[in-house]
Amino acid sequence: MMADFELRPVGLVRSALTDRSGAPRQGYEGAPEASIEIHAEFHRGLDGVKAGDDVLILTWLHQGRRDVLEVRGRKDPRNPLTGVFATRSPDRPNPIGLHRVTVTRIDGTRLDVRPLEAIDGTPVVDIKPVLDRSNDG
Amino acid sequence: MMADFELRPVGLVRSALTDRSGAPRQGYEGAPEASIEIHAEFHRGLDGVKAGDDVLILTWLHQGRRDVLEVRGRKDPRNPLTGVFATRSPDRPNPIGLHRVTVTRIDGTRLDVRPLEAIDGTPVVDIKPVLDRSNDG
Repeated sequence: MMADFELRPVGLVRSALTDRSGAPRQGYEGAPEASIEIHAEFHRGLDGVKAGDDVLILTWLHQGRRDVLEVRGRKDPRNPLTGVFATRSPDRPNPIGLHRVTVTRIDGTRLDVRPLEAIDGTPVVDIKPVLDRSNDG
Repeated sequence: MMADFELRPVGLVRSALTDRSGAPRQGYEGAPEASIEIHAEFHRGLDGVKAGDDVLILTWLHQGRRDVLEVRGRKDPRNPLTGVFATRSPDRPNPIGLHRVTVTRIDGTRLDVRPLEAIDGTPVVDIKPVLDRSNDG
């Protein structure tokens, strides 16, 4: 069976962060509150998501380099080369970003969330509830 | 800037689970040990992944229905319709599976992991380290 591997953006990030070089590496490193705008046709998918929920935002890190398999940790040249699957580098074959955030407010198709280190305009491809028991976020 | 939204499988799941209807819903619900076979061209990306590591496997749930926006929890008709973004249903616009597992053994491009509820042949699109501090898995 041939699969369709084309992601369809369901929304996008609205953030004061506009430049990858200025963005924190992880949400807990001082990332700001930001918004997720869900495209109208996916609105029904939000039914049941509430302010106060911890959710996982999956993004498509569209500025990631997909031909990179090894990086130096935190881009520090003193660090050894490490395989991208052992890192959270946005440079990787499939640059899917995974962000655990708290929903602070919902207004129609807009979710205010924090903290989020993704830059303005980053496509959102999925939202999932955190499952405490699996601790996978 | 136009993004390329095409996922490229980097490997696939090898598991005794062959049928979605017989698979546990979550790894912690009795899922077996399984293997991830990484395609040879992505081998270098594994450098630094070790037995004992907790990692996130991102899969493409190729049997998921992409036109579904609301489901009944655990497919129980007594449960109310809920937006897919408030659930872990494999039926969703972008059926990306997220699985927290422990690597039990690495042999070249094969990782033995547990527990994993994804069925045999499921494409793997990414592997990420668990970041304890973000608790996003």
